Amino acid sequence: MIDLYTAATPNGWKASVALEEMGLDYNVHSVNLMKGEQKTPEFLAMNPNGRIPVIVDREAGGHTVFESGAIMLYLAEKTGLFIPNTAVGRSQVTQWLMFQMGGIGPMMGQANVFYRYLEEKIPIAIDRYQNEVRRLFTVLDGHLAHREYLVDDYSIADMANWCWVRTYEWSGASIDGLDNLIRWKNSIEARPAARRGVEVPNKIDKEALIKGAKNVVTR
Amino acid sequence: MIDLYTAATPNGWKASVALEEMGLDYNVHSVNLMKGEQKTPEFLAMNPNGRIPVIVDREAGGHTVFESGAIMLYLAEKTGLFIPNTAVGRSQVTQWLMFQMGGIGPMMGQANVFYRYLEEKIPIAIDRYQNEVRRLFTVLDGHLAHREYLVDDYSIADMANWCWVRTYEWSGASIDGLDNLIRWKNSIEARPAARRGVEVPNKIDKEALIKGAKNVVTR
Repeated sequence: MIDLYTAATPNGWKASVALEEMGLDYNVHSVNLMKGEQKTPEFLAMNPNGRIPVIVDREAGGHTVFESGAIMLYLAEKTGLFIPNTAVGRSQVTQWLMFQMGGIGPMMGQANVFYRYLEEKIPIAIDRYQNEVRRLFTVLDGHLAHREYLVDDYSIADMANWCWVRTYEWSGASIDGLDNLIRWKNSIEARPAARRGVEVPNKIDKEALIKGAKNVVTR
Repeated sequence: MIDLYTAATPNGWKASVALEEMGLDYNVHSVNLMKGEQKTPEFLAMNPNGRIPVIVDREAGGHTVFESGAIMLYLAEKTGLFIPNTAVGRSQVTQWLMFQMGGIGPMMGQANVFYRYLEEKIPIAIDRYQNEVRRLFTVLDGHLAHREYLVDDYSIADMANWCWVRTYEWSGASIDGLDNLIRWKNSIEARPAARRGVEVPNKIDKEALIKGAKNVVTR
């Protein structure tokens, strides 16, 4: 059994989508970010960085894993699923996982901060991050032009990027005209396990969230 | 033999430090970022994201690896060096590597943009990223309070974080009072292979760079 400490964010979904796709048994512990539950001494003992998601693998002596990308790699290695078993194949998946960890995730995160959360609207910062997100989306789109998934079979690299890309509206970024990216996004959305994963720890009404968002810049 | 395409940046150094520490033979191809050599068709064929570093492993049929974190994992797996051989140990190293990929790297990168590169100085953005960098440094410092390295023996996780942390002045961030972090940083700086790695593709005069930097905010 695995304990999952999470919240309804793209990084949280990366863990729950992987757990669902791999068919692993897990307990969900919902962490209330607004109440700062990720900064309690109990939580910091699991992840000194005070961020969700975290998993604790009771079958592995309580081994604790933080950082969503590290959780995906650990679970893929544990099950042998959604990652190739050759060095070259593993490396190809790791590359696109790192592309999400170091690119798509942080840049969409910064777009969210300047576009959604900060009261003061700073056009130069909003443009910077929305343009960079669009550029990264275009890289994915080009790579997917002649491939169904990022690396051969559907893998943790697809799950990781999809958990972020699907929230493009929240970042105020566009996927218009990126037909390969849209086809790939739709094909993952059609997977029941992926859909279950993004309803952990609770189903959120994306439309209501976007329409009701405070401090939204009309562009 | 490995071909390394790189430039003198923290992400570039991650690859060259790993290659030096592992004692691998490699050819250095210097990529001139100011001339946009990372956006040529030849380079984009290796990395569609147009970023250094990239390696091509001639011993593995020309297997090409982009994303500095993926390069480090590939080389560690290839050599069996600087990563534990147990699932739990590998996972611990991967967690701190991901902490650098998703945290230290992107946040120091954004601090550099707003503190150094952008002509318009936006205090709210400069403060945001410098504060976040300091917070992440504090996480490392706390974790290192009772450990010599991030995970047991010196590993690719130490190399990855060190390549960024050592440039703290460039980001305008402080390490004052973070004695564990400073001790760890100094101990890696004392390693001949690490020092050789950060002089690839060329030795840069850090002091001159910092003193001569344009658009520096005096704080």
